[in-house]
Amino acid sequence: MPCTLLNLCEYDTQKLVKIKNVRLGSLKWTLNGVILMFICIMMLWNKEYQKYDPVQSSVTTKVKGVANITIPDIGEVVWDVVDYSGPYQGRNSFFVATNVIVTNQKQGKCPEVLPHGKLCQTDKDCEEGLSNQLNHGVQTGACVKLDIQKKTCEVTAWCPIENKRNPRPAILASAENFTVMIKNNIRFPAFNYIRRNILPEMKETDLKGCIYNRYKNPYCPIFRLGDIVSEAKEKFSEIAVEGGVIGIQINWDCDLNHIFHSCLPKYSFRRLDEKESNRTLYPGLNFRFGRYSIVNGEQQRTLFKMYGIRFDVMVFGKAGKFSIIQLIIYIGSTLSYYALTTMFLDWLIGTGCYSKEAKQNYTERKFEVIQDQEECFLCVSFVDEDQLRVVKKSDGKYNGLRLYQAVPSQKDFNR
Amino acid sequence: MPCTLLNLCEYDTQKLVKIKNVRLGSLKWTLNGVILMFICIMMLWNKEYQKYDPVQSSVTTKVKGVANITIPDIGEVVWDVVDYSGPYQGRNSFFVATNVIVTNQKQGKCPEVLPHGKLCQTDKDCEEGLSNQLNHGVQTGACVKLDIQKKTCEVTAWCPIENKRNPRPAILASAENFTVMIKNNIRFPAFNYIRRNILPEMKETDLKGCIYNRYKNPYCPIFRLGDIVSEAKEKFSEIAVEGGVIGIQINWDCDLNHIFHSCLPKYSFRRLDEKESNRTLYPGLNFRFGRYSIVNGEQQRTLFKMYGIRFDVMVFGKAGKFSIIQLIIYIGSTLSYYALTTMFLDWLIGTGCYSKEAKQNYTERKFEVIQDQEECFLCVSFVDEDQLRVVKKSDGKYNGLRLYQAVPSQKDFNR
Amino acid sequence: MPCTLLNLCEYDTQKLVKIKNVRLGSLKWTLNGVILMFICIMMLWNKEYQKYDPVQSSVTTKVKGVANITIPDIGEVVWDVVDYSGPYQGRNSFFVATNVIVTNQKQGKCPEVLPHGKLCQTDKDCEEGLSNQLNHGVQTGACVKLDIQKKTCEVTAWCPIENKRNPRPAILASAENFTVMIKNNIRFPAFNYIRRNILPEMKETDLKGCIYNRYKNPYCPIFRLGDIVSEAKEKFSEIAVEGGVIGIQINWDCDLNHIFHSCLPKYSFRRLDEKESNRTLYPGLNFRFGRYSIVNGEQQRTLFKMYGIRFDVMVFGKAGKFSIIQLIIYIGSTLSYYALTTMFLDWLIGTGCYSKEAKQNYTERKFEVIQDQEECFLCVSFVDEDQLRVVKKSDGKYNGLRLYQAVPSQKDFNR
Repeated sequence: MPCTLLNLCEYDTQKLVKIKNVRLGSLKWTLNGVILMFICIMMLWNKEYQKYDPVQSSVTTKVKGVANITIPDIGEVVWDVVDYSGPYQGRNSFFVATNVIVTNQKQGKCPEVLPHGKLCQTDKDCEEGLSNQLNHGVQTGACVKLDIQKKTCEVTAWCPIENKRNPRPAILASAENFTVMIKNNIRFPAFNYIRRNILPEMKETDLKGCIYNRYKNPYCPIFRLGDIVSEAKEKFSEIAVEGGVIGIQINWDCDLNHIFHSCLPKYSFRRLDEKESNRTLYPGLNFRFGRYSIVNGEQQRTLFKMYGIRFDVMVFGKAGKFSIIQLIIYIGSTLSYYALTTMFLDWLIGTGCYSKEAKQNYTERKFEVIQDQEECFLCVSFVDEDQLRVVKKSDGKYNGLRLYQAVPSQKDFNR
Repeated sequence: MPCTLLNLCEYDTQKLVKIKNVRLGSLKWTLNGVILMFICIMMLWNKEYQKYDPVQSSVTTKVKGVANITIPDIGEVVWDVVDYSGPYQGRNSFFVATNVIVTNQKQGKCPEVLPHGKLCQTDKDCEEGLSNQLNHGVQTGACVKLDIQKKTCEVTAWCPIENKRNPRPAILASAENFTVMIKNNIRFPAFNYIRRNILPEMKETDLKGCIYNRYKNPYCPIFRLGDIVSEAKEKFSEIAVEGGVIGIQINWDCDLNHIFHSCLPKYSFRRLDEKESNRTLYPGLNFRFGRYSIVNGEQQRTLFKMYGIRFDVMVFGKAGKFSIIQLIIYIGSTLSYYALTTMFLDWLIGTGCYSKEAKQNYTERKFEVIQDQEECFLCVSFVDEDQLRVVKKSDGKYNGLRLYQAVPSQKDFNR
Repeated sequence: MPCTLLNLCEYDTQKLVKIKNVRLGSLKWTLNGVILMFICIMMLWNKEYQKYDPVQSSVTTKVKGVANITIPDIGEVVWDVVDYSGPYQGRNSFFVATNVIVTNQKQGKCPEVLPHGKLCQTDKDCEEGLSNQLNHGVQTGACVKLDIQKKTCEVTAWCPIENKRNPRPAILASAENFTVMIKNNIRFPAFNYIRRNILPEMKETDLKGCIYNRYKNPYCPIFRLGDIVSEAKEKFSEIAVEGGVIGIQINWDCDLNHIFHSCLPKYSFRRLDEKESNRTLYPGLNFRFGRYSIVNGEQQRTLFKMYGIRFDVMVFGKAGKFSIIQLIIYIGSTLSYYALTTMFLDWLIGTGCYSKEAKQNYTERKFEVIQDQEECFLCVSFVDEDQLRVVKKSDGKYNGLRLYQAVPSQKDFNR
């Protein structure tokens, strides 16, 4: 037969030992049941039957509020969003100044301030053209009076040099009452699902006066800055002095199945920079910017050192939807766990923990021992010396051959 | 033998039942073939033989174009990129103003505008120092005339308060013809592969006049804003009035294998903010900024409320390259699928769907049944009452022992 | 028995062939040992016993340094960070100007510059109202003198039009000596672990004067710009002329286990835009901004074309901590590898590579051959013609039934 020659027409399957035993049977089914339950719970818990898609997001923010503040050397002014946001324009973040140092400056020559400069006695102590990372200008080589007692090296710089400490309490501490509206549009491309944090059921009247509150109004997109800071477990009056970075996290955990449909934003707030660290080592957030003007043909600038809070809006999220393919993949990946039952029961029988008798009984049936060549010859010669190869070949597996083997054994006993 | 004692010199392998049957054999090979084909198709489809690396990207943009516009109260001016971009400087995004409201302001006192303020009759209706999130300033406590008919509370603020509606049609509707050049450098660190969207084969002459067109010129890095908006399925004249956010997606799907080498950018455009939503609920995008100046010793500012389009450049991409390790891992992960053939054929035989006769024939050979202890005693006693343990032990597995068992059975029949 | 009927009280386990052979046994254990060793090495190498968490990061930067520069048409000025950063304020990036072109402009009419405009002879060559992406203004329709020899179309624009080449060497080449302090706060939410790149053991005195150096001072958070550029394998004097983008990568690879605890930042630097590309095709980075002022009631602006380096701070990182669950999952996922030993040994025996004799001996014991129906009839009829179905059913599997089968065979021989 060509079929046998090609060896293609055979089908190999494992030979199994079927033990008919109530205790083992029920143990097997119990273990399988436990595994099945575990798999089902995992599936429901992790929603493994869902296909997931990460969020795509776009954020725009708008801060509102005015403050009547008194800036040293400038006087009382009203500041609105254009003033206290400075030039900061980020894609997913906004800045609100809380403390400010203002200095009117012109290009010129003036004594370096302490501790950035060094004290000097005569012009010899100062080197012309010298400048390092701590200086505010380039030394002219002259030594001039800083105040009545001290003399420092003169520098070419924007004069006078900014030389004030950040005010306490913060000048713009009232920024606590400012509000920000955050508009967040999200999209799940795989499901072609679009949503924004101004929910469809919200009406203009709902939004006009609302303020986000974790318990009472968790979906209002308008936030009071003081609330954000206090939810981040910070004191506004403290963070206001030196500034900081606060993260506004918007989490969208959407279930897009028809029955359990839900897709709502969840807001949380956290300070992103480290407040615990040693206070003296550059805490907080500040930056400088200038407003330039030409007065009487001469260029001037008003230097602002702005301390403030940068709010970083971070959008996380994923959407899940039932997917038959995901379910099949998950079921497939768990099939191998059922082998644990067999492993455990075989081990139980093998060790004899289950019962001494069962060990003896089942182990012998489960294992078919082939002795190594040398021992095997001995065994065979004991049974039948002259038909060595026949005996080895026929060992009760084939109907047709079994009889040949049975004969010598029989003869042996009939002697 | 120390070997047997240690039990280390044994080798266990599964006992298999080899069924020589043409139909089962060909069914087995057919099923294995189907699985192999499926695996190969999946491999080629998903390019599982490749190692992937995500893209690292840097983007710079430059907008060009001028517009001759007429701003109410200001007159006719020519605006270039410095004017209409405002102070906006993002890492991966740029802003183009399309509509603008300009107000010249000074610090002072003036009546609050409607609807932000409230109508009043006398000074008693206004509370000094009051300010909320909707006000433009801090109330002075006076009630002053807003126009001939109405009176509102006076506020300390930047005066006069901005009080214009956004013009229709948009003032800078001609921004449609502006162009932007997007330079995008990408890098696949794992493959040390660098590329940019100005392709190496492009010459200066190709670039000077080119404009991106999806069909005719898909690799030109210069885009007309009107084309971007229309590819995002929006009307420029509509989005220009209130502003919006448009996403420019650059997708790099690179095949870095020598034969199929391809690494070209693919551009797509999409509106990121929700235009479908109720128009009255804060649609579009706008922000304010000021230009400050000192005129006759008095500070002034020109307040710009800029409506416009923010273009967010988003770069996605991955590169694939043949990897022998990935191929081996993939092949390894698919080996278990071949077990399905055995499972299916065993089930086929077991249920008898295949053939009644085969079921009877093969199932008995596949399974070796061990009766439970209790039943077993009955069976054994039927055969031979006095040699209970010997019979149980010898069940046709060992050449040397089988004969002992065969004898009693024989005797039984010889009676 | 209801148990047998329900078929629930059975336990199936694979029948194994136990080959007692020293060579095969030691080969098996050797292979298993190799696999175990490989798995353990992989585990330790990839730290598979750890649970990982990606980094959450916040970055703030502060540049320091002043430069005495000479701007053409303006004169000698001292520039500090407010001047050379321009209006750029990014969340994770900062800009330092290295070259600058300054032009004082007013709204007005002036000849277009070359090569953006076109040469003309008479007013007929110019079209009123025309403007394209390369023009600086809108044509008035007049043809005016650009210089003594050439005439170009007049445009309404900010006049005079910027018409200078970027200076070589770069005006702000001394920006090389500026320093930047990068504050990076990181957080691993899953482990509730917070850290910043100013390490807890650092004191104020350590920080005041320190400069990052890859070998001597790898944890100092203050960087000299020249060092950053040279570590990115660029020459500052070259990149300064046309600008560029440099990536500052901070990598946190943290081991949060108690014994091996380590969590230190690792800095690396890389040029992100392509310097290799054809120099003429828009290399480098530059942007324009304006300072607006009103002089004698007339609006002016000072246009700055800033060439410079944008430094993008990119934070990568993950933290690992021992997790018993991860370890169990890893061990579970590797169990299947041990099947390779059996596969290999079975193949070795099957092919006869191991030993011809072993092949014959073991293969016959491993496989229990069932002949196809047709052949089977022949076999059976050879043994016993009249009890065909009984023989087929009883083939030495059941104690109680085996005897019936043994009889006819016996009879055959007794004849």
